[in-house]
Amino acid sequence: MDKEAVQEPTDGRIRRGDRTRRTVLARAVDIASVEGLDGLSIGRLAGELGISKSGLIGHFGSKEELQLSTIRAARAIFATTVIEPAMRSTAGLARVRALLDAWLDYSSDRRFPGGCFFARAMHEYAARPGAVRDALAVVDDEWLGLIATSIEEAQAAGEIDPSVDAAQLAFDLDSYLDSANLRSLLGRTDVYERAARSMRDRLESVTTVPA
Amino acid sequence: MDKEAVQEPTDGRIRRGDRTRRTVLARAVDIASVEGLDGLSIGRLAGELGISKSGLIGHFGSKEELQLSTIRAARAIFATTVIEPAMRSTAGLARVRALLDAWLDYSSDRRFPGGCFFARAMHEYAARPGAVRDALAVVDDEWLGLIATSIEEAQAAGEIDPSVDAAQLAFDLDSYLDSANLRSLLGRTDVYERAARSMRDRLESVTTVPA
Repeated sequence: MDKEAVQEPTDGRIRRGDRTRRTVLARAVDIASVEGLDGLSIGRLAGELGISKSGLIGHFGSKEELQLSTIRAARAIFATTVIEPAMRSTAGLARVRALLDAWLDYSSDRRFPGGCFFARAMHEYAARPGAVRDALAVVDDEWLGLIATSIEEAQAAGEIDPSVDAAQLAFDLDSYLDSANLRSLLGRTDVYERAARSMRDRLESVTTVPA
Repeated sequence: MDKEAVQEPTDGRIRRGDRTRRTVLARAVDIASVEGLDGLSIGRLAGELGISKSGLIGHFGSKEELQLSTIRAARAIFATTVIEPAMRSTAGLARVRALLDAWLDYSSDRRFPGGCFFARAMHEYAARPGAVRDALAVVDDEWLGLIATSIEEAQAAGEIDPSVDAAQLAFDLDSYLDSANLRSLLGRTDVYERAARSMRDRLESVTTVPA
C-alpha cells in the first residue's frame, strides 16, 4: 500500500492538482517558445488539454500569472538541461566550456520546439515594462552572471589571463549563442559550427594553457 | 498652380491613397517593434488612425499582407538610417566601422520604440514557417552579406588580414549588436559600450593597419 495514501485525505487532491499544473506548464513552455508568451491563453490550454477553464483559472489566476509560472517552469528546465550538467565539470576553463557547449546543445536539440525559450520571450517583452519583463531580466542576469563567475574561477585557477574583463568576455561568448539560435531557426545550417568556432577562438585568445 | 493638378483626375486619389498607406505603415512599424507583427491588426490601426476598416482592407488585404508591407517599410527605414549613411564612407575598414556604428546608433537612438524592428520580428517568426519568416530571413541575409562584403573590400584594400574568414567575422560582429540591443531594452545601461568595445577589439585583432 502506498505510504502516502494513509496521510491526510487532501493529499490525493493536492497530487492531482500538482499533476495538472505540471501538464499545463509542460505544454505552455512549448507553445510560448514558438508563439510567445502572448500565445498563451487559459482558454486555449484548457481546450487542448481537456481541462476545465475554471480549473485552470483556479491554478493560475490571471494570464500574467500563467506567463510568470511558465517562465519559472522554463527556468527549471534550463537549469536541468544546461546548468546542472555543466556544474559537474571542474570549476575553471572546463566549466566555462561545458556551460557554452551545453547551451548550444540545448538550442540545437530543440529542447523547446521554438529554440531557446528565453531568447523568444525576452525579445517579446524587452520593450514592455512589467512583471514579465522583470522576471526575464532576472533570468538573463543569472545566466550572464554565471558565465562571468565561471570565467573568474578559471582566472583564479590560472587558466584565463587575469587581466581579462570577465563580464566583457561573458558578453561576447553569450552573443554567439543567441545569434546561432536565431539564425538556425531562420533556416541557416552552418550557425552552430560558427558559434562553436567563435567561442573556441575567443577563449583561445585569453587562455594561458594549451588547448 | 500645382503642375500635377492638371494631370489625370485620378492622381489626387492616388496621392491620397499613398499618403494613407504611408501613415498606416509609419504607425505599424512602431507598434510591431514593441508588440510584434502579431500585434498588428487592421481593426486596431483603423481605430487609432481614424481610417475606415474597409479602406484599410482595400490597401493591405489580409493581415499577412499588412505584416509583409510593414517589413518592407521597416527595411526602407533601416536602409535610410543605417546603410545609406555608412555607404558614403570609403569602401574598406572605414565602411565596416561605419556600418556597425550606424547600427548601434539606430538601436540606441530608438529609431523604433521597441529597439531593432528586425530583432523583434525575427525572434517572433523564426520558428513559424511561412511568407513572413521568409521575408525576414531575406533581410537578415542581406545584412550579414553586406557586412561580409564590406570586410572583403577591407581585405582587398589591405586593411584586414586576407586569411580571415569574412563570413565568420561578420557573424561575430553582428552578434554583439543584437546582444546590446536586447539587453538595453531589458534595462542594462552598459551594453552599447560593451558592444562597441567588443567590435573594436575584434576588428583590431584582424586589422593590418594601426588604429
